[in-house]
Amino acid sequence: MTPRLPIHLPNQHLEKLDSDFLYHLGINSKTTNLEKYFGDVKFVCMGGTKTRMFELAKYLQKVLGLNGELVDLCEKAHRYALYKVGPVLCASHGIGMPSMSILLHEMIKLVIYAKCKDPIFLRIGTSGGLGIPIGTVVVTKDAYNGYIRNEHELAILGERVCRPAKFNEEVYTNLLACAEEDDEFATILGNTMATDDFYEGQGRLDGAICSHNEEQKMTFLRKLHDHGIRNIEMEATMFSSLTHHIGIKAGEVCVTLVDRLKGDQVTQSNIPKEVLEQRPLTMAGRFIKKQLNL
Amino acid sequence: MTPRLPIHLPNQHLEKLDSDFLYHLGINSKTTNLEKYFGDVKFVCMGGTKTRMFELAKYLQKVLGLNGELVDLCEKAHRYALYKVGPVLCASHGIGMPSMSILLHEMIKLVIYAKCKDPIFLRIGTSGGLGIPIGTVVVTKDAYNGYIRNEHELAILGERVCRPAKFNEEVYTNLLACAEEDDEFATILGNTMATDDFYEGQGRLDGAICSHNEEQKMTFLRKLHDHGIRNIEMEATMFSSLTHHIGIKAGEVCVTLVDRLKGDQVTQSNIPKEVLEQRPLTMAGRFIKKQLNL
Repeated sequence: MTPRLPIHLPNQHLEKLDSDFLYHLGINSKTTNLEKYFGDVKFVCMGGTKTRMFELAKYLQKVLGLNGELVDLCEKAHRYALYKVGPVLCASHGIGMPSMSILLHEMIKLVIYAKCKDPIFLRIGTSGGLGIPIGTVVVTKDAYNGYIRNEHELAILGERVCRPAKFNEEVYTNLLACAEEDDEFATILGNTMATDDFYEGQGRLDGAICSHNEEQKMTFLRKLHDHGIRNIEMEATMFSSLTHHIGIKAGEVCVTLVDRLKGDQVTQSNIPKEVLEQRPLTMAGRFIKKQLNL
Repeated sequence: MTPRLPIHLPNQHLEKLDSDFLYHLGINSKTTNLEKYFGDVKFVCMGGTKTRMFELAKYLQKVLGLNGELVDLCEKAHRYALYKVGPVLCASHGIGMPSMSILLHEMIKLVIYAKCKDPIFLRIGTSGGLGIPIGTVVVTKDAYNGYIRNEHELAILGERVCRPAKFNEEVYTNLLACAEEDDEFATILGNTMATDDFYEGQGRLDGAICSHNEEQKMTFLRKLHDHGIRNIEMEATMFSSLTHHIGIKAGEVCVTLVDRLKGDQVTQSNIPKEVLEQRPLTMAGRFIKKQLNL
């Protein structure tokens, strides 16, 4: 990996702020000594639920040979959970890109204010698979939005803005290299589709409403597969586009809980959910250990 | 109000399902007797955080003269919190429309399977205000998306679909009528803008990145004001469009925590946050009491 450097300030307006209240984290840049508490951070790991991020923090304590009580540093703000394990932050981002976006903006500001050196951002998640066995771990190359385009679309000042949604090659190559021969699961590189809607947006037939049929759904899913898309979740285009725009190294590693070519309901697997959910955590643990030369 | 009728099944595909696992609620339609446990539900109240929905449930116990231990019925699914207080469900929806969308699809299926009669859906939230005193309660009429259009835009099978984003007139009229003369706050009817991004999407200058300036921001915010928009949040177009599409009566009542014409940071108010956050809860309590003729 290339040498670690501090991230430059990507928004000059922030220089003019006397203090910055990271509202959804409940952390004030003026009253908290961010450099003291977070200056050593090298990895920011994010995942959907508070529970899974607590599990990840516990697991990383074991991997890194650390201990101590895990405290949710954002508990009083009631939105996200944040744990610190040595040089790793573990944060929950909720469901979907708007929720992820708020966490990401505030975490990026936090690591900039804390003068962290070239931190790597990882998303560790669950997803629906496309034509691969349930339990496969997918490392994302390119992210596609709901319109099957390799970009993230957002409204700024009422205008449509599109940004490339690419993950960092060095990170995804190194993530892939963390697969081990005697793993009980396959780890593959693939493209990931991120939608703003779990039901209609992912072509499911079992939402509260649905105006398409089984044949139209399958045509859509096969089209995704033709674009190299191997899994579907709800965060990847936002996450990859913002980190790519700023020049932060980022990667994503997700396990699949269902094969969408075989159905919509998340009840297909005989493998316990805890076993499946541990897999991307294991990959993150291996990646961090290697990066730290442990 | 018009007589209460069961909602018709808005998606014929659901008839073919042997069982429906409401995955993010952790509730199975086959193994849980939904009609027995939820058949009496007349109101589904939703808000962002689990904490606030617990507060709402406690408050409604007091308002409705009920008691008993409050149990989170979705705890094991780790996503949303769900409390039942007599005929009222209180559910947390997280941040943003994708998160709200999943909860809404699954809650609508739940009330349909439970054969609830004409349930009213309410969102009780916080928001940023536009040119109104902090602490004002805004009842929403029409919802506008990030492109300042009175519609909700979503990708279905890769195609762009737009749906009208209107709240039910009977509900917003009755919500407005719950204001009382000696309230310490004003309650107004206004349009609400819902964005997919808290920072760039709402014109803020203090995100991790920002490519516009103060003047462009103010021009944008004044344009919103000209459209009758009095507050900005991250759920209204999705919520109003899906309920409108199905024919479910829905309304939204939010307090404002900031005046965006005066700044971006959520630190302007001298009134404690708990006092502000109680206001839409109070309005919901009055509305439910009136509807039940108590």
